[in-house]
Amino acid sequence: MSGKSENKKTDICKAPIGVFDSGVGGLTVMREIMRQLPNEKAVYFGDTARVPYGSKSKETVLRYSRQIIRFLRTRGVKAIVVACNTASAYALETIQEEIDLPIIGVVKPGAQVAAETTRSGRIGVIGTEGTISSRIYPEYIARWNPEAAVFGKACPLFVPLVEEGLLKDPVTEEIASRYLREFEGSGIDTLILGCTHYPLLRSTIGKVMGETVALVNPAYETARSLKELLREQKLENPGGMEEQAGQYEFYVSDSVQRFQRFASMILSFETTHAEQIQIEEY
Amino acid sequence: MSGKSENKKTDICKAPIGVFDSGVGGLTVMREIMRQLPNEKAVYFGDTARVPYGSKSKETVLRYSRQIIRFLRTRGVKAIVVACNTASAYALETIQEEIDLPIIGVVKPGAQVAAETTRSGRIGVIGTEGTISSRIYPEYIARWNPEAAVFGKACPLFVPLVEEGLLKDPVTEEIASRYLREFEGSGIDTLILGCTHYPLLRSTIGKVMGETVALVNPAYETARSLKELLREQKLENPGGMEEQAGQYEFYVSDSVQRFQRFASMILSFETTHAEQIQIEEY
Repeated sequence: MSGKSENKKTDICKAPIGVFDSGVGGLTVMREIMRQLPNEKAVYFGDTARVPYGSKSKETVLRYSRQIIRFLRTRGVKAIVVACNTASAYALETIQEEIDLPIIGVVKPGAQVAAETTRSGRIGVIGTEGTISSRIYPEYIARWNPEAAVFGKACPLFVPLVEEGLLKDPVTEEIASRYLREFEGSGIDTLILGCTHYPLLRSTIGKVMGETVALVNPAYETARSLKELLREQKLENPGGMEEQAGQYEFYVSDSVQRFQRFASMILSFETTHAEQIQIEEY
Repeated sequence: MSGKSENKKTDICKAPIGVFDSGVGGLTVMREIMRQLPNEKAVYFGDTARVPYGSKSKETVLRYSRQIIRFLRTRGVKAIVVACNTASAYALETIQEEIDLPIIGVVKPGAQVAAETTRSGRIGVIGTEGTISSRIYPEYIARWNPEAAVFGKACPLFVPLVEEGLLKDPVTEEIASRYLREFEGSGIDTLILGCTHYPLLRSTIGKVMGETVALVNPAYETARSLKELLREQKLENPGGMEEQAGQYEFYVSDSVQRFQRFASMILSFETTHAEQIQIEEY
C-alpha cells in the first residue's frame, strides 16, 4: 500500500504547471517559470480570441477564468498560475475557494516585494488603464505596508509597442519618458511593472527611471512564489533527462501564427507545440 | 386617408439614423454624417465593452451586430450605418437580408471610390491586422475594377496612438514613415484609410505619402452614400429649427467617461447625451 501511495505522489509531482493569461503577455511569467523551475513541465493557455480582459466585467472575467481552469484540468495540471493582472484581480480569490489545486496570481507577489523593500515608503505602479483604475496594487500593498504611498500611471501605448517588437527603440524611449515624467518629484524608490508585457521594456524603463529606482518584475516574483509553494506542498518535480520531451505545451483560443510570432520574441526556443482550441466548449 | 399617410411618411423622415461601431472609431463616420447631413438626427452606439471585433469570429460579430440593431430599433431609427470595418465585412450582407431598413457599411463606399478614381490601377489599403488579412478591400475593389492591383499594410500602432491623442506628434510621424515605407516603389496613386480611426491621422499620413497619392476617407464616402440612399428612398429629414434639441444621442456598452474623453477630441461639440447600456440584454 505504501508503495502505491508513493507512486501516486510521484505521479502528481510529474504533472505540469498550468499557466494562463488573456493573451500573450503571460509568456513573460512562463519564461520565468522555465528559468527558475527548469525541472517543471508547463501548459500555457492564452485567451487570444477574447483579449483584452481589462475592459470586461468582473462576472465575465470570472466565467472565462473558470472555463480556462476546466481546460487546464483536462491537461492534468498540479497547480495553476493566473498570469494575468485582470484575472488575478477579479477572479483569483473566488476561484481559490472553488478548487482543490494550489493557485496563485501575479498581483500579490509583486505587491508584497514592493511593500516590503521600499525604503522611502513611496511606490510607483505602471499598468494598463484597467489595472491602474482598479486600484488592485494599492490595495494589496496596504496589506503589508499600510503606510506606503502608491502612485499609479496607466501607459496604454506600452502593450502595442511591445507587440510590434519595438522593445529598444527611440520611439519607445520617447513614449516612456513622457509617461514616466509623471513620477518626477514623487520620491518613489520602487516601481512595479504591473502589466505582463512590461518586463520586456525593462531596459528602456530602467534607463528613463535611473538607477535609484528599483524595478519590481511581478513575473519574476510569481515564479519565486510558485517555487516556494511547490516546495511547501511537496509537489516539486524530481526531474530527470527522460522528462525533457514535450515539457512545454502552448494553447490559444485564436490563430496560432500570431501567437508563435510573439512567443518566439519572448522565449529563447521555438514553441514546438502550439494549438488552437475552442475555449467556449469548456 | 392620404393626409394620414402623408403624416406617417413625415414621421419616418424625422426619425434618426442609427450608427454603430465596435468602439469609438466610428465617431469619425458620425462626424461626417453631422457635417454632410446637418438636418438628420442620429443615434450612435459604440460597443466599447466588447471592442475589438477584429479578433473575433464571424459568428460572434454577427451575433453582436444583431443585438445592436435590435437596440437601435428601440430608438426608432429609419436607416443604419455599420461604421465598423469588421462588422461591415462579416455581418452586413447577412443582415441586409434579414431586416427591412436601409443599411450600409463603410467598406463598399471607400472601395468603390478608390476603384473608380485610380489612374495607375494600383491602390494601397491600410488598416488593422484583421481588416488587412480579411482581404475585404481587394475583394470589393475587384467588383468595380478587376484589373486593379491592391497593396495592403497593417498598421497596428495607429489605433493606440490615436486613442492617446497623438494625432500630430513626432512619434506618430516616425511610426507612419516606417509603416508607409512599405508602399515605396509600388506605384500606388490612391491610399484607402481602411480603419475608422485613421482619418484622424490624415495630415500625418498625407505628409508622409506626398501630394501625388490621393487619400480615400471611407467615413466621408459613407456619409455621401447615406445621403444618396436617403434621397433615393425619400427618407430625408426636411429639418427645421425645432429639430435641433436632442439631435444626437450616444450610447456605449462600457464606461461613459472614457468614451466622452475620446468623443470630445473628434466632435467639435460636447456629447451632451451619452449613456451606458447593457447590450447583452438586446
